[in-house]
Amino acid sequence: MAELTPDAQTPARRGRGRRPADQVRAEILTAAGELLLAEGMAGFTIEKVAAHAGASRMTIYKWWPSKGALALDGYFTVVAPTLAFTDTADIVADLTNQLVAFVHLVRDTTAGRVISQLIGQAQTDPELAAAYRERYSAPRRALAVETLTRAMTRGQLRADIDPESVVDQLWGACYHRLLIADLPLTEDFARTLVDNLIRGLR
Amino acid sequence: MAELTPDAQTPARRGRGRRPADQVRAEILTAAGELLLAEGMAGFTIEKVAAHAGASRMTIYKWWPSKGALALDGYFTVVAPTLAFTDTADIVADLTNQLVAFVHLVRDTTAGRVISQLIGQAQTDPELAAAYRERYSAPRRALAVETLTRAMTRGQLRADIDPESVVDQLWGACYHRLLIADLPLTEDFARTLVDNLIRGLR
Repeated sequence: MAELTPDAQTPARRGRGRRPADQVRAEILTAAGELLLAEGMAGFTIEKVAAHAGASRMTIYKWWPSKGALALDGYFTVVAPTLAFTDTADIVADLTNQLVAFVHLVRDTTAGRVISQLIGQAQTDPELAAAYRERYSAPRRALAVETLTRAMTRGQLRADIDPESVVDQLWGACYHRLLIADLPLTEDFARTLVDNLIRGLR
Repeated sequence: MAELTPDAQTPARRGRGRRPADQVRAEILTAAGELLLAEGMAGFTIEKVAAHAGASRMTIYKWWPSKGALALDGYFTVVAPTLAFTDTADIVADLTNQLVAFVHLVRDTTAGRVISQLIGQAQTDPELAAAYRERYSAPRRALAVETLTRAMTRGQLRADIDPESVVDQLWGACYHRLLIADLPLTEDFARTLVDNLIRGLR
């Protein structure tokens, strides 16, 4: 990536105060994620991200094809620590803890409103929908599938389950309540989702 | 309801060709649902529904507080036969058959696009969101909970499960794939959702 950008400098030029490309990229992502959470897509502009990150608009356009792509990469970056999975011998605890953290993120911070409006807008904006899938939902799904697959390999879950379907029945069930708020999104709900699947309904 | 509307007539006036209120109401709902499925919310107007149903706009405004409310009542009405639950001794078959019918409805007809755009628009339109919940998702949820509760009473499912959470893990999981199309919405997926919950993942 470094050779693609004017922010990538030789060690000699770094010494004159230029940041390495990886650092510029990380600062742009953090600025983008924080701006999105603060203002939603309505207040999100490349100009503001550039100003907050101390980077040029040219640099941002070189790395990200659209405003939506930058916003979603930024969102992925800033929520990643909150949504990290633990890896213990107890898959029920690993899933429950992560799902409870997810519920708190979307219920108790601006993330819920921001993400529901992004998904809403994506229903009539194919480019935003593609950016959402490529830069947020698919990589998040992959992390969950990795955790589930590890548990299957270890014998904590049956080896013949389809982990992708489990993603829809845990996080997808929460998105359902986020997007169609018939009933509240609570910690108890998150725990019940895991319990239903682990124990079965019979 | 009849005394609220000029379409409600005494038997003597019916004899002069006026339809009873219940029939007018049913024809308005069918016209509204069919118009919504044909044109989406973008092409949905009270005027067109009135023309298709042979009713006055005044009658429609007397019964429905908004365009969204009429569209969603109409949608509920026209999809109800497709989404009816069977009631056999086999809860797995009853859930699977209904869920497969739901998958075909949203995947193979215009319903999927219409409903995903409605949910999308509801994210920034509180009045539409309320109409969606009151006139579509809450009554559909109640029908599913009724089926699940009956199965619990009969001992086909554990008596201590929370049926509301199961709604999110079956239909909610499908809405997740409808709204965020990382992976396809298939019959196999519907069957897997039921199987995961019934057998449990261990």
